[in-house]
Amino acid sequence: MGPHPAVAAIRLAVRRVLHDILTEHSRTTSDTPDTSHERPPSPLVLVACSGGADSMALASALAFEAPKLGIRAGGVTVDHGLQPGSDLRADEVVLRLRELGLDPVESATVTVGREGGPEAAARDARYAALDAAAERHGATAVLLGHTRDDQAETVLLGLARGSGIRSLSGMAAVSGGPGAARRYRRPFLQLDRQTARKACMAQSLPVWDDPHNADPAYTRSRLRHEGLPALEKALGKGVVEALARTARLSRDDADALDAWAGQAEASVRDAAGLLECAKLYALPPAVRRRILRRAAIEAGAPAGSLFARHIEEVDRLITGWRGQGAINLPGKVLAQRQGGRLVIRQG
Amino acid sequence: MGPHPAVAAIRLAVRRVLHDILTEHSRTTSDTPDTSHERPPSPLVLVACSGGADSMALASALAFEAPKLGIRAGGVTVDHGLQPGSDLRADEVVLRLRELGLDPVESATVTVGREGGPEAAARDARYAALDAAAERHGATAVLLGHTRDDQAETVLLGLARGSGIRSLSGMAAVSGGPGAARRYRRPFLQLDRQTARKACMAQSLPVWDDPHNADPAYTRSRLRHEGLPALEKALGKGVVEALARTARLSRDDADALDAWAGQAEASVRDAAGLLECAKLYALPPAVRRRILRRAAIEAGAPAGSLFARHIEEVDRLITGWRGQGAINLPGKVLAQRQGGRLVIRQG
Repeated sequence: MGPHPAVAAIRLAVRRVLHDILTEHSRTTSDTPDTSHERPPSPLVLVACSGGADSMALASALAFEAPKLGIRAGGVTVDHGLQPGSDLRADEVVLRLRELGLDPVESATVTVGREGGPEAAARDARYAALDAAAERHGATAVLLGHTRDDQAETVLLGLARGSGIRSLSGMAAVSGGPGAARRYRRPFLQLDRQTARKACMAQSLPVWDDPHNADPAYTRSRLRHEGLPALEKALGKGVVEALARTARLSRDDADALDAWAGQAEASVRDAAGLLECAKLYALPPAVRRRILRRAAIEAGAPAGSLFARHIEEVDRLITGWRGQGAINLPGKVLAQRQGGRLVIRQG
Repeated sequence: MGPHPAVAAIRLAVRRVLHDILTEHSRTTSDTPDTSHERPPSPLVLVACSGGADSMALASALAFEAPKLGIRAGGVTVDHGLQPGSDLRADEVVLRLRELGLDPVESATVTVGREGGPEAAARDARYAALDAAAERHGATAVLLGHTRDDQAETVLLGLARGSGIRSLSGMAAVSGGPGAARRYRRPFLQLDRQTARKACMAQSLPVWDDPHNADPAYTRSRLRHEGLPALEKALGKGVVEALARTARLSRDDADALDAWAGQAEASVRDAAGLLECAKLYALPPAVRRRILRRAAIEAGAPAGSLFARHIEEVDRLITGWRGQGAINLPGKVLAQRQGGRLVIRQG
């Protein structure tokens, strides 16, 4: 008798990602001249584990699959220090990861700042700790337990910003950390949360439900427990999958348009490097607005405070020119039209 | 004392659109050689009016603004024949439009088929009737009362399909009918439903609430009364505006990528007109998938039944080639890889 279908599903998802990692790893190591005539050490893959169902399922699948592929498997749990007893919880997670056979396993304690709100600050601290752990252990990759449901929530959060398709593209299956362009992998991005939970039950893995996840003070929690269910009730059960597919398609679209804007940018600058309004005007609006956004960021406007409405206003200097004055952008950046050129600089 | 702010808002929205129509109209008529030495007849603009608050507000604003710009204003109401007494309702709307000073005003009775579900069938019948009315009266444009709230709902309906950014782009401010590329205008697309309703109250215009709009059997109605309010509760009041902005941005992005795919398509075909896999592989995924979609539709696959997952499967013939067989697409279209070429044709 094979494993429970949910366990089979999580293992398959992890196996696929480990295969990718192995392929990339062997490509990298075979590029390096083998002077020592020794076999390169087997790669290490870490799992980031909170003790919740998603990441416990991920850890169990990694522990099962990695040895079969000659991969070393370890784990990291991050203690955010936001709840009393969080240190004890972290110790417990470390214990469970060791029981699964992972090695090395460590707990990283972080200090969560306040920048960008509580959720963003916790995330920043967490990734910094994971980056540090990956560097310290020389890990090839870090697996993250985000599921298709997390992805759907992320798309809706992006939709609420209304800042275009990049913010609809959710989380990438592969993303980078400092100095490692493909460090983070999300094997469960096309798997639903229910499957992860079932896999834990089928394997009798105790899981911990973070009270934050049910706290209506958090936008994501409200979305999870009220927004998404209501949307599913109105639109049908396929909504989560549709949102996840939207993320993948939007990401590719946004990448292609960014590439186009990157290439087109050089062609709309004059000899002095200034943007020529007539040439900008001739571009498709989607490409032109991306060039304007890049130029504003280059001039010092912080990307996070630069909204679609700012760019629309700058765009009107090109498409609706009637002598309007300089546009104020975040970061004290000014955009103005001067003699057929668009000048964007810190004022 | 000026008009109520809501009345001022609806009038401004309509005035802007009428200005656009006049500009385009004078451009068209000045292109025609003026042999008769007579002034061209003043353009006619029709409003499509259900008797509901949105389109009654629109009709009132058109009646107020059109004469000041030398534009003739008329109205059409469509009797879908779906409810008992709908003919009497249509007569009543005709009466109200005449009271506003519109001329010509007519009621068009349609027979709603069943294709594509009740909402799509009603919409198809309605637009056919509006097209016919526009042709019959020689109207330059037809105004539609869709508001920002309708747009937000349309984006969410597109999101539920999960078929990419084109389906997120909602309704266009300007769209075409047969033989008239810019027939339909939606002056209220950036105005909220509440403003239209207030404008009716401020002008003591009686409005009719279509019971369909509150019928939970309709997806859009569930979305309006349950889905969107829950989403607003989770994400904040700005959701409707964010969704409408997403529509505008997505439309421009989709247009740009379609244009790119259109241009790139010629470059990936060999002398015999077949798609070359190696050249397709070199394109960004977003552009490649659009070319594949166009090719499938050209081969006879009905656009409405061709989903993202179909295109993803065809794409794997390019990006994940391991000798797989022909892919079945809707409309009995087959896609297969043969000797480095992708052949898509009806089988």
